[in-house]
Amino acid sequence: MGEKSVQELHAPSSICFGCGPSNENGLQIRSFKVDSGLEMEFMPKPEHQAFPGMINGGIIGTLLDCHGNWAAAMALMDQRGDLEPPCTVTASYSISLKRPTPFGGSLKVTAEAFEVKEDRAIVKMILMSEGKICATGEGLFVAVKEGHPAFHRWS
Amino acid sequence: MGEKSVQELHAPSSICFGCGPSNENGLQIRSFKVDSGLEMEFMPKPEHQAFPGMINGGIIGTLLDCHGNWAAAMALMDQRGDLEPPCTVTASYSISLKRPTPFGGSLKVTAEAFEVKEDRAIVKMILMSEGKICATGEGLFVAVKEGHPAFHRWS
Repeated sequence: MGEKSVQELHAPSSICFGCGPSNENGLQIRSFKVDSGLEMEFMPKPEHQAFPGMINGGIIGTLLDCHGNWAAAMALMDQRGDLEPPCTVTASYSISLKRPTPFGGSLKVTAEAFEVKEDRAIVKMILMSEGKICATGEGLFVAVKEGHPAFHRWS
Repeated sequence: MGEKSVQELHAPSSICFGCGPSNENGLQIRSFKVDSGLEMEFMPKPEHQAFPGMINGGIIGTLLDCHGNWAAAMALMDQRGDLEPPCTVTASYSISLKRPTPFGGSLKVTAEAFEVKEDRAIVKMILMSEGKICATGEGLFVAVKEGHPAFHRWS
């Protein structure tokens, strides 16, 4: 394993389908900090295809949504000078599928928060395969307040 | 089972993660024709949660994307007077999460094509739980031509 992902560092017991380290039936994405935000690599399984050889758009959306949500959480943490990220949820996201995403190799996904406010961030995500951009996305992610059902989602 | 879904009727061997009847590890959504388009019910599994009690936004997107794609395919089939739907793929989709989608009960999803052109359709999707709208979505779905890797996706 080596370096720990932000999910393993900050939410090791999360059961989220996309990003929970503790969901053995989930995608278990692993996102890492880079200068521009977060990046990750993901190796799809056969069941993640839409048809033989190409990845399903819903799986692509799930990767970009969860990875983008973590980019927002980390951007808010850094802006606040905190050591732990706030619990953020997705308000909305959009996915543009530029070309079929091939099955068989690793996918690289980047996420960059480009508008960070007090309790929310807009994040742009890019999915690449074999050096080509296959999909792009944008999401609005919001830090929830105490009392919201997601307030303790990372713990 | 009773009545067959549009997926079982037109693409029984599809392995799509969201809508393929032949993907035992997928969501295997089952969509049915109604006057306004398509409707479906879906019972999430524990691994589809984002945190205990609430459904992951990527799973919600996958449900709306695949269900919307089928609504587009059926609308194009009807417009053409064909007996089989064209093979359609998602060009883009957006998801708005209005409130947390609770885990434990059945989700109802509707899809209505409201702009049907020669080879594409824009579809609006709504996800309800316990009588409340939890998420809405919109997608652009395109019928692919021979030579595209998805051209035979339903067969």
